[in-house]
Amino acid sequence: MPNIFVEELVHTPIEKQVIEIVERKGIGHPDSLADGMAEAMSRELSREYIRRFGAVLHHNTDETQIVAGRSNPQFGGGEVIEPIYVLLVGRATKFFNGEYIPTDKIALKAARDYIRQHMQNLDPELDVVFNVRLGEGSTDLQDVFRRKSGNVALANDTSFGIGFAPLSETERLVFNVERRIYEEFRKKNPAIGEDVKVMGLREKDRISLTIAAAFVDRYVANIKEYDAIKEELENFVKEISSEYTEREVEVFVNTADDYETGCVYLTVTGTSAENGDDGSVGRGNRCNGLITPGRPMSMEASSGKNPINHVGKIYNLLANQIAARIAEEVEGVEEVYVRILSQIGKPINEPKALSVQVIPKSGYDISKLERPARDIAEEMIANVGKITDMVIEGKVRTF
Amino acid sequence: MPNIFVEELVHTPIEKQVIEIVERKGIGHPDSLADGMAEAMSRELSREYIRRFGAVLHHNTDETQIVAGRSNPQFGGGEVIEPIYVLLVGRATKFFNGEYIPTDKIALKAARDYIRQHMQNLDPELDVVFNVRLGEGSTDLQDVFRRKSGNVALANDTSFGIGFAPLSETERLVFNVERRIYEEFRKKNPAIGEDVKVMGLREKDRISLTIAAAFVDRYVANIKEYDAIKEELENFVKEISSEYTEREVEVFVNTADDYETGCVYLTVTGTSAENGDDGSVGRGNRCNGLITPGRPMSMEASSGKNPINHVGKIYNLLANQIAARIAEEVEGVEEVYVRILSQIGKPINEPKALSVQVIPKSGYDISKLERPARDIAEEMIANVGKITDMVIEGKVRTF
Amino acid sequence: MPNIFVEELVHTPIEKQVIEIVERKGIGHPDSLADGMAEAMSRELSREYIRRFGAVLHHNTDETQIVAGRSNPQFGGGEVIEPIYVLLVGRATKFFNGEYIPTDKIALKAARDYIRQHMQNLDPELDVVFNVRLGEGSTDLQDVFRRKSGNVALANDTSFGIGFAPLSETERLVFNVERRIYEEFRKKNPAIGEDVKVMGLREKDRISLTIAAAFVDRYVANIKEYDAIKEELENFVKEISSEYTEREVEVFVNTADDYETGCVYLTVTGTSAENGDDGSVGRGNRCNGLITPGRPMSMEASSGKNPINHVGKIYNLLANQIAARIAEEVEGVEEVYVRILSQIGKPINEPKALSVQVIPKSGYDISKLERPARDIAEEMIANVGKITDMVIEGKVRTF
Amino acid sequence: MPNIFVEELVHTPIEKQVIEIVERKGIGHPDSLADGMAEAMSRELSREYIRRFGAVLHHNTDETQIVAGRSNPQFGGGEVIEPIYVLLVGRATKFFNGEYIPTDKIALKAARDYIRQHMQNLDPELDVVFNVRLGEGSTDLQDVFRRKSGNVALANDTSFGIGFAPLSETERLVFNVERRIYEEFRKKNPAIGEDVKVMGLREKDRISLTIAAAFVDRYVANIKEYDAIKEELENFVKEISSEYTEREVEVFVNTADDYETGCVYLTVTGTSAENGDDGSVGRGNRCNGLITPGRPMSMEASSGKNPINHVGKIYNLLANQIAARIAEEVEGVEEVYVRILSQIGKPINEPKALSVQVIPKSGYDISKLERPARDIAEEMIANVGKITDMVIEGKVRTF
Repeated sequence: MPNIFVEELVHTPIEKQVIEIVERKGIGHPDSLADGMAEAMSRELSREYIRRFGAVLHHNTDETQIVAGRSNPQFGGGEVIEPIYVLLVGRATKFFNGEYIPTDKIALKAARDYIRQHMQNLDPELDVVFNVRLGEGSTDLQDVFRRKSGNVALANDTSFGIGFAPLSETERLVFNVERRIYEEFRKKNPAIGEDVKVMGLREKDRISLTIAAAFVDRYVANIKEYDAIKEELENFVKEISSEYTEREVEVFVNTADDYETGCVYLTVTGTSAENGDDGSVGRGNRCNGLITPGRPMSMEASSGKNPINHVGKIYNLLANQIAARIAEEVEGVEEVYVRILSQIGKPINEPKALSVQVIPKSGYDISKLERPARDIAEEMIANVGKITDMVIEGKVRTF
Repeated sequence: MPNIFVEELVHTPIEKQVIEIVERKGIGHPDSLADGMAEAMSRELSREYIRRFGAVLHHNTDETQIVAGRSNPQFGGGEVIEPIYVLLVGRATKFFNGEYIPTDKIALKAARDYIRQHMQNLDPELDVVFNVRLGEGSTDLQDVFRRKSGNVALANDTSFGIGFAPLSETERLVFNVERRIYEEFRKKNPAIGEDVKVMGLREKDRISLTIAAAFVDRYVANIKEYDAIKEELENFVKEISSEYTEREVEVFVNTADDYETGCVYLTVTGTSAENGDDGSVGRGNRCNGLITPGRPMSMEASSGKNPINHVGKIYNLLANQIAARIAEEVEGVEEVYVRILSQIGKPINEPKALSVQVIPKSGYDISKLERPARDIAEEMIANVGKITDMVIEGKVRTF
Repeated sequence: MPNIFVEELVHTPIEKQVIEIVERKGIGHPDSLADGMAEAMSRELSREYIRRFGAVLHHNTDETQIVAGRSNPQFGGGEVIEPIYVLLVGRATKFFNGEYIPTDKIALKAARDYIRQHMQNLDPELDVVFNVRLGEGSTDLQDVFRRKSGNVALANDTSFGIGFAPLSETERLVFNVERRIYEEFRKKNPAIGEDVKVMGLREKDRISLTIAAAFVDRYVANIKEYDAIKEELENFVKEISSEYTEREVEVFVNTADDYETGCVYLTVTGTSAENGDDGSVGRGNRCNGLITPGRPMSMEASSGKNPINHVGKIYNLLANQIAARIAEEVEGVEEVYVRILSQIGKPINEPKALSVQVIPKSGYDISKLERPARDIAEEMIANVGKITDMVIEGKVRTF
Repeated sequence: MPNIFVEELVHTPIEKQVIEIVERKGIGHPDSLADGMAEAMSRELSREYIRRFGAVLHHNTDETQIVAGRSNPQFGGGEVIEPIYVLLVGRATKFFNGEYIPTDKIALKAARDYIRQHMQNLDPELDVVFNVRLGEGSTDLQDVFRRKSGNVALANDTSFGIGFAPLSETERLVFNVERRIYEEFRKKNPAIGEDVKVMGLREKDRISLTIAAAFVDRYVANIKEYDAIKEELENFVKEISSEYTEREVEVFVNTADDYETGCVYLTVTGTSAENGDDGSVGRGNRCNGLITPGRPMSMEASSGKNPINHVGKIYNLLANQIAARIAEEVEGVEEVYVRILSQIGKPINEPKALSVQVIPKSGYDISKLERPARDIAEEMIANVGKITDMVIEGKVRTF
């Protein structure tokens, strides 16, 4: 493929830069909730389209907006005063081949089920008011047949995707700290909500983790208990940190707490969306699960875009997978950056440009790495359809 | 200030990288419209708060959502079938010091006026349906007095801002091509709408500009005229390109046009929001006006955030200004990257870390550049309040 | 009480008029659904206010609007394509005595539960999208204390209530036909939905009942079965009719059906709100369960108004109860009409005027009936507070 | 026509009844505003359909809901704090004969223009937020052709219309008092808003008019001026009353005012919808402009229904016109009541029943009146299409 460029990048590797900033917004953060519902909607629509027509029809549900509610948290259990308002936005094919598809209901159900499955203390029936505004999308019958007979979809836009590998130590740390609070600590300690934001700052070899963790009021009797759990959480994070780095790690939890005025990070439902924090699709984590201002990033929201021809989704996912494989399989790669640029109307397996930038490990020469890197890229772009399948099966992270 | 770090960045300068991707979404792009309305709302709220109370009260209007309408464009003039739906979202202080503030009306008026001023053919009364959901924000009386007596606001969150300078040739080119289509070409040729997206790809020394420009149907009689104007636009872009680069520039306008089926990029109002393209705040251009995946970027939406204590806005604007001054005033700087990290609850002129990364021009040594760079950074962080003023006066770009 | 007027009404009694028109909209009619949800909201708010504060605070939830959905009914089972949209509208006291009350959630839950309890095949989670717009109402602390110490509430408005008794034969017939289809026939035959409208026309001694009954598609295999059930329903109505009248009764079910084109009254959920029929509070049955254009009626929506001081509700319910008791207890009353007019700001047990109009049976003189009629009216207006209790306990019909 | 029944009604004529209650909600009352916008929408849609297709297509816009705003009125001029929210609801044919019709825009424009034309101080751009939910209605091409070739529309439903004539003295009085406050007094005295509710109570020969009139704050300097204007208004009403009745008339304006607490009926915009009073179509005046609980009334909202085949609108308007002509043209008619019952699917000029009930003047015999009354009814039902024209031309009152 002539459009694949592999080049050496001369660049201070991330680990050797003095300052590194990494952020992860947890599952219950308003932006992540928007991402999660958007992706769930797209996934369920895709499945329903396949069930009915054997192919995914045109849709994009990547514009969900969360308008925060109002709550009155209290130690021992407060209440949500005004429900969160969620506007499910996007386009979907509502009529195809003589048949109506109940897209709004599918979207609504997907969003509600998502909340139910991921949020312990947020009742999607009473704490949330949903509204749906799915515009009419349209799918060309021809196009679906073409795809069914094995042809590749055409890029919906001129856009690009970006990925890199491997994750730096701080990146791995930040990512895993949130994941393990969600999956381990929270399971044992229900006082921790799903809205956990982890901000990592590495200054040379000192890492500080600033964690904002929403507490759930009904599981906390008073400020003393609150403080005890906070300490527990700090200790948990410190402990697991050593599994990811040998650098010194400082941990700060809920630094804005003011014990004197009693102003602490208490919620009724485990998410700040209950009281003043709005959320949008595509404003939080990139599809590798992180916000990494020191790395190239795409502005495209991966969540909710259709997995058939929306290059803003597919190329971001693909670029990360290509980068990951190169970093893993090609000996001598210190860091690798992949960018893929589409051309509207061209088959998605024929990008306008696919750039692979490599920082070789010391002692390795780019000329040796070029061929295997290119091979991996070439193979993966040829099989870009696998991304679609993985997305529909829910096997790939988008935020 | 101890938290300012200046370091040398070893890095292939952007101009020497093989591949460079740069994008700008024009004024009429749905994401830009959302940004523009969000910022207008915040600006007008700020002014009204000052008028009434002598200080800007707490607010954030950075979550506006545009749900696309439906239109039926026709050569010679078609019509909007279903209006665009705009949900103005955010928080604002609605009651302060015994007085109610009509925040919803102010927001509504700001958004409508913004459309009126920036969009030639989009009627904010009939082509757009507005809804407002501004939650109750609250401002502490104490806090306002404190600020009025000269103290600095406290950071609202743990977040960061990012900036760099100077713009690369391709970046300047992409930016100016959109700006001059909007301000020069469109003025002479009303057939060009405000929704112009410019995607720049530099492969070594060849630049290609892929431009998606919405045409306004009433000013185009037929497909022949459409084609003629398209050619005119291509020529215009080619001509002005030479002012920004000596590299070879290819220009592609509306590449998805299909003359045979008559499927061309025609709109009634000059924006694709009229027919199927939704828009969100913070998903388009960064505050330097560009999307630059090869550069560090922040995910924070600058538009609509309050200019008093929202570091997601202030630090992004400030980082860009610091970078620009260093690039301009310090001799020997090839490229400079600035990142500022806040700490929730701390004065915004005392960031947790301010990192300045410099790629020196060949022949210059970082040790010589460090001091002047640090001085500029120090001076500007000390005067961070100027950013607030510039924002309220509308003197600073946020997208 | 000086404001009670009892007079003889010279009037052709309803049974002797040549033409009589009577209508009843069943439980599942969109207007009735709106009434039912509105009343459920008020009832649950009242109960919650009592639970928290020992008194019902100010609220009115009598403006719910149902926007119809879209469906694709099919013999054997079709589907709802676009959910019904329900806007719950009104005012409620959201903050009282230092405490926030989650009025929106209470209203939402009440409306959802109402649907769940009354509609067999309408899923309030997926077939309906709810939105809440309860404005801020306010309750004066003083006022609540005053009422708690036994004082009577003050009329909220200058308005009136109207009632009459007894029901005519046709009225009883129409009322009971709907009730028994809902409670008997539907239980045995799930193919009949809750949206059953009965229109009765009496021309002298011939009564025709025109019934529009929504069928539920999943319980009807084909048009033959549809026709068979329709015949069954007709027979059922004819049979029970003889319990209410000796007049000749003709029954017409779903007269707009067109078997040739297959256009019959089939629904997915049992209500026409699923496909094109909007509904509003106060546009259907009066609080005696009927629409009776030959009788005096009030335009006030009884459903959803607060049962404490909203005379538009209380006086309509009271007027009907006074009329019923007079008709039942006072010998010689052929027909009785009661009207009560309030004066804003005056205690509700002191109406501006209470008019009792009696048509005596032949052989009876108004002078004999006046005293007992007045006594009943006087006693009941003195105990107007009982209406409030009955409403909160759900013991009184409002539509 | 066999279905026309003329009968004598034995009935105390309204003027001889002891108690009479009559109400009129003025132009600016929230329910009237809803009616006015609903009718304006239908009228403009009808005109546009005619312009495009030569015939009115299917639509109904009779479900508009007004959700009250929030205001802070002040002597000398206060402000609207939260705009009024108006949900325009109904169905309309959006696609016909290969052409899209921008129904939402037409509806939006009609509603806005209506406000602009009828409300002096209510800004439809800033004091009101509009939303549109017009479902998809459908019109059969066949049906339109059929009608164009002179055939009569088929009744959309089994429903009825009701009318009576002449108006009683109290009815004329109440009607004209509101009309002349709106058209005369308000023009000279801008302090009076459009939201004027007149409640008339006649007890034998004493009439009391209780008037609730919204004052517009910017035109009233203080409570003294308020009181002076109130007195002026009272005097105006007393004066003009003598033109309509020789009975004694008492006038009460804004009886709930409390000068001590300063709680008077002051508004910013002239309507109570600005602060807490919601409004709905069909809950206010009947199509004769009055609410008359002592007279037969229909529950159907006339405003907003389509004027082609919606018998709930057409038959109400027609019944009133028939009654008016009989009362005027047939000698010896004291009172006349007309009811028309439709049959779904039958031509609207062939009602199932048309009942004319006459109370003859003393000395006149029903047998003499029957023939001319029947002739008028017969002629007018035959020309029912004229109602449609008058509605579209805006020549007929619907509330």
